[in-house]
Amino acid sequence: MKHILTRRSIRQYSGRDIEPKLLNRLLTEAARTQTMGNLQLYSVVVTRSVEGKAALAPAHFNQPMVTQAPVVLTICADFRRTSKWAECRKAKPGYDNALSFTNAATDALLYTQTFCNLAEDAGLGLCFLGTTIYMPLPIIEALKLPKLVFPVATLTVGWPAEEPPLSDRLPLESFVHQESYHDPTPADIDRFYSEKEARPENQEFVRINKKETLAQIFTDIRYTKKDNEMMSKGLLAALRHQGFLGENRT
Amino acid sequence: MKHILTRRSIRQYSGRDIEPKLLNRLLTEAARTQTMGNLQLYSVVVTRSVEGKAALAPAHFNQPMVTQAPVVLTICADFRRTSKWAECRKAKPGYDNALSFTNAATDALLYTQTFCNLAEDAGLGLCFLGTTIYMPLPIIEALKLPKLVFPVATLTVGWPAEEPPLSDRLPLESFVHQESYHDPTPADIDRFYSEKEARPENQEFVRINKKETLAQIFTDIRYTKKDNEMMSKGLLAALRHQGFLGENRT
Repeated sequence: MKHILTRRSIRQYSGRDIEPKLLNRLLTEAARTQTMGNLQLYSVVVTRSVEGKAALAPAHFNQPMVTQAPVVLTICADFRRTSKWAECRKAKPGYDNALSFTNAATDALLYTQTFCNLAEDAGLGLCFLGTTIYMPLPIIEALKLPKLVFPVATLTVGWPAEEPPLSDRLPLESFVHQESYHDPTPADIDRFYSEKEARPENQEFVRINKKETLAQIFTDIRYTKKDNEMMSKGLLAALRHQGFLGENRT
Repeated sequence: MKHILTRRSIRQYSGRDIEPKLLNRLLTEAARTQTMGNLQLYSVVVTRSVEGKAALAPAHFNQPMVTQAPVVLTICADFRRTSKWAECRKAKPGYDNALSFTNAATDALLYTQTFCNLAEDAGLGLCFLGTTIYMPLPIIEALKLPKLVFPVATLTVGWPAEEPPLSDRLPLESFVHQESYHDPTPADIDRFYSEKEARPENQEFVRINKKETLAQIFTDIRYTKKDNEMMSKGLLAALRHQGFLGENRT
């Protein structure tokens, strides 16, 4: 797994397709990941068609990777298949609730990341689209996801046609705590973030956006309170629409 | 990443400790995983002490791995550090909402799985404890997790002292869909689950639990509607307690 040290998100892909045989091998091997009760509470929708990608693009703010990558994978938390199994076997499923959604989303995200590691190890490049949970309803419609299926991750996948610089990471002590959580002091924050803040590309970001600090780029532009609260409502509404907040209907 | 084909969850560990240097290397390398806005919205609490493990054990139904593994890792969705950074930099954070929790939980779970792949590649054995989200409050107390920090995964980690059989997996066609979701028919369900249902250990489970079908083991014993709904309430209450459902306070 040496690739992990040099991995970067890849947003530009060569014209080369991904052979179904390779994709299926990676999707099969990723399923060795641990899963709750061995139930595999996830599903993957593979989008290769031009029309399929065009239908997904708006939900991802029309980021060009969606239409340019040979393959788009939408990974879903899925309690549908397991519930159908139960119904076919004289068993009464009870998975229309927040805990079951969280269990299935966990399964789906662990599966997703093993797939990423396997795909990158095989030389593929990919980009994880965090937009999946920003506007889930158009994705649910485009992929015809029924109740108890909910998209939690999207990957655009292809053969790399770029080699962007490695992105920075915080020092280990900023995110690893011994025995109990150490709440960071202002001095800790200075130590953790000084390298990130000093990077020329980040200073340039601050300058061109006419902000005072790098943190303001995140709070005022990229991930604002207003957007987060609006999209939280949309996320909860979509979860309800897919039947995952059943216990809250009263 | 050849290990993936033969991986199994490991619940019994040799007496050998995990050197801090090795653990720190794995925790550092896992941080190369993609992360939202490069913010690394996670933290890891390392528990090595006997008292620390004893404090966590009840939240995990006293599964013996918790006290027997040399290392227990609790991986948390964390918007605390990022919010503290903002506050120290004249920026106003807005991450006390469901979307931000989901963003951070996603980051944390992707990080968790790369750590798992790296650790297993290095010969370590581990078990993912799904119990983390069943009773989050005792874990939050034991690890002194402040607001905007929420446990989403626990790993017990050690050197393997067992080699259990590989668990079964569903066929690829059961969880991979082309272009749009194919809702499984009863005939599909028979095809997907027949191998699992025919396995001698599963038939034995059904017999000793005096059930008619394997699915009933899940719906009636392991993951019941009643438990799921009770724990959903606890999960949502814990999220509110940690400040992640701020927009719902009205």
